[in-house]
Amino acid sequence: MFRGFIYLLLSIISFSSFAFEFSPQQKKNADKLIAEALKDDLGYQVVESLTTEVGPRLAGTEAETRARRWAVKKLKSLGFKNVRVEHFDVPRWTRGIETAEITSPFPQPLTITALGGSVSTPAQGVEGEIYVVPSLKALQTVKANSLKGKIVFVDETMARTQDGSGYSAAVAKRRETAFEAHRAGASAALIRSVGTSKHRFAHTGQMRRVTDTTGDPSVPTAALSAPDADQLRRILNKTGKVRVKVTLTPRTEPRGKSGNVIAEIPGTQSPKEIVMIGAHLDSWDLGTGAIDDGAGVGIVVAAARLVKEVLGKAPKRTIRVVLFGAEEVGLVGAKEYANKHKEELANHIISAESDFGADVVWQFGSNNVAKDKLDIVKAFQEVLRPLDIIPGSTVAYGGPDVKYIREMGFPVAELKQNGVDYFDLHHTPDDTLDKINIDKLRQNIAAYAAFVYLASDMEETFN
Amino acid sequence: MFRGFIYLLLSIISFSSFAFEFSPQQKKNADKLIAEALKDDLGYQVVESLTTEVGPRLAGTEAETRARRWAVKKLKSLGFKNVRVEHFDVPRWTRGIETAEITSPFPQPLTITALGGSVSTPAQGVEGEIYVVPSLKALQTVKANSLKGKIVFVDETMARTQDGSGYSAAVAKRRETAFEAHRAGASAALIRSVGTSKHRFAHTGQMRRVTDTTGDPSVPTAALSAPDADQLRRILNKTGKVRVKVTLTPRTEPRGKSGNVIAEIPGTQSPKEIVMIGAHLDSWDLGTGAIDDGAGVGIVVAAARLVKEVLGKAPKRTIRVVLFGAEEVGLVGAKEYANKHKEELANHIISAESDFGADVVWQFGSNNVAKDKLDIVKAFQEVLRPLDIIPGSTVAYGGPDVKYIREMGFPVAELKQNGVDYFDLHHTPDDTLDKINIDKLRQNIAAYAAFVYLASDMEETFN
Repeated sequence: MFRGFIYLLLSIISFSSFAFEFSPQQKKNADKLIAEALKDDLGYQVVESLTTEVGPRLAGTEAETRARRWAVKKLKSLGFKNVRVEHFDVPRWTRGIETAEITSPFPQPLTITALGGSVSTPAQGVEGEIYVVPSLKALQTVKANSLKGKIVFVDETMARTQDGSGYSAAVAKRRETAFEAHRAGASAALIRSVGTSKHRFAHTGQMRRVTDTTGDPSVPTAALSAPDADQLRRILNKTGKVRVKVTLTPRTEPRGKSGNVIAEIPGTQSPKEIVMIGAHLDSWDLGTGAIDDGAGVGIVVAAARLVKEVLGKAPKRTIRVVLFGAEEVGLVGAKEYANKHKEELANHIISAESDFGADVVWQFGSNNVAKDKLDIVKAFQEVLRPLDIIPGSTVAYGGPDVKYIREMGFPVAELKQNGVDYFDLHHTPDDTLDKINIDKLRQNIAAYAAFVYLASDMEETFN
Repeated sequence: MFRGFIYLLLSIISFSSFAFEFSPQQKKNADKLIAEALKDDLGYQVVESLTTEVGPRLAGTEAETRARRWAVKKLKSLGFKNVRVEHFDVPRWTRGIETAEITSPFPQPLTITALGGSVSTPAQGVEGEIYVVPSLKALQTVKANSLKGKIVFVDETMARTQDGSGYSAAVAKRRETAFEAHRAGASAALIRSVGTSKHRFAHTGQMRRVTDTTGDPSVPTAALSAPDADQLRRILNKTGKVRVKVTLTPRTEPRGKSGNVIAEIPGTQSPKEIVMIGAHLDSWDLGTGAIDDGAGVGIVVAAARLVKEVLGKAPKRTIRVVLFGAEEVGLVGAKEYANKHKEELANHIISAESDFGADVVWQFGSNNVAKDKLDIVKAFQEVLRPLDIIPGSTVAYGGPDVKYIREMGFPVAELKQNGVDYFDLHHTPDDTLDKINIDKLRQNIAAYAAFVYLASDMEETFN
């Protein structure tokens, strides 16, 4: 009797949660988009074109300017409307010499790379005894000015995870070491790379966001590749005392030019209502930015284009593609977009960014969706299920460049990619085109195409 | 009837080929050595110690001198006798700046590394239009002095093979491009790395042997990583015309010091008869020489030591371990050894070198073994069969540093390793300790221990 009641209750809940359905025509269109996307070549061609014809494109540099020019030309040639650039300024940091060597007891070179935003050493470098700590936390407990003449080594590892949680746990080390090492009185700092690669690549990445600089003093700081961190650790274990010389000569100029590139497929019925899908156009300087974030650019551009091409006409709402500038140095483009479009954000029906590599989407989640609208999210999940995508969180992240939109309470979707191998390549010289599998890229395009079409063609909103 | 005759014939051949047998005690000892070797820690400790405490050790440099000092100390501490260095001179080539960039049409950096023996560019580099050829062979057909102001790009790939045959086919490109490009009138040359890695590492390696220099003029020559060769090829395919700037500042000094380190377990009955197992002590400068050839050093040292330790006494013949110097720059130590020990080579019962990484031995072959002694080789193969080692060639290679011994007609054995992944790491910065799997290393040590024990304890000779 009681058990019967539970079943009844469950079936009511279950029924009510599938109250929302897309129309048969919408479902048919979504299935058609998925089928076409799984044969798509455009997405890969876009990544190939960007990474080959522009290559690395660090925020604020002339290369990033060339990337914007490339994007405007590409988006126009693909038939997008209202293609434009919204410019802004950003500090321009550029890499110089970066060398390190163990000078005693066992002289040998070390593979390092400066962290983005690092200050430089004197031209002749700095040499000092290594002071090793197992974590940023441990460094934070070191007494102020107690490490005079020393070089800090933060030997904290990063867990390999599917959902990127290993990165979230490890990245504070990259952000704060330079400042903590200065507080402790050290002359420079090295961190074990924030990454999972066992190959001899050091992973770069920004220290604090350029928008968060408070003028706090810092020391020159670089990342060691995992094999080099292992080597330094082994020598420390053997001898207890290791001297290292580090030379870093990066430069920061106060103002470089950056910008967001925007393109649209105007809606046929409610053009002021916007479904936004984005990726970021800038990359780190070491690789060619294929997985971070050329892949995202290819995915969202190809998905949006496919909606128009395959269905023959635009959906009711406007599909807006945003290629953000200066993401890597601290989400500068994201902030600019949120500020500049403040009045319009209430019309952003939902927003999503593809910025987690080129592996398959395995989860569809959302954030800021009203409780009584979650059945709409479930309807999306039903459509995406044949792509081996399972339901995700209702407090999902949505991508770095929708951070401000999410924080302001507007709906975001997350087409979460498998990140288990992402941090093998992330921010290294090895982030190149050959690492992209076209079939996995197509699965992403299929998911985005179905999502962006349905969100822009349905009548409902998420809040 | 006829069939019956064939069977009879086969069984006679089969019987005759097992005419030679090790004694029951020898077999028992060999099995015991194999069992102990599969638990061995010394081999790994030796590689760890060499690659950590010395690191990279390029021929003729102070680092190679430190490697010899390390070896003498290590071999003495392990109880080897007659530990000594046989010194010789070798030209000393050292790497300088090495940078390259596409200057037009799509400006971006390229990852390169100078080939060993390369001459340098002017300090400001050389810039020129790329002239691409699909192979060294194609370059050899280019008219003399027809490429003035051009930079040659030899875009020849290398096949991944288990037995290293892909390398043998591809390496001529590394040896000869610098000279052929000079003949054609070019100002510099780039080759697609001789290697199989898809990661962004350029593979270095010697051009012509330092002992083979004939004073032929050459141009500055570097290897591109595979992703960079792909990129250059893509841009050439798109635009037909690419300009590249290359800067290389290596230096050659005419005389550096090198040497072979020799250690022995003197034989108890016929100490003048020698079973020689070797590896090379020098390495390229980019990695720490773990797989090339720290692994070989660990394998032969641990195998020889194990024979004495496990059996409690030395075999009848002398086991000689030779750690060759200056292998990478052209088998200089090998030639010195063959010359210096010319009178003694007839007493070298058999010789073998471990220099093909750290993957498992899968074949046991021989060379210069008399036809009527091949049943002895088969007896060795029987003993090694439980290690998943199958019979190999009777005209086997035996390793680079036994080249001259083999060419002079003395018996060599080959414990051939699986090389399918070897050229992912070979001559790159990624040749580091973490790439070694201790269980695979132990399988090598087991094979070498059984081989060196039986060859030094049996009464017979191979010729």
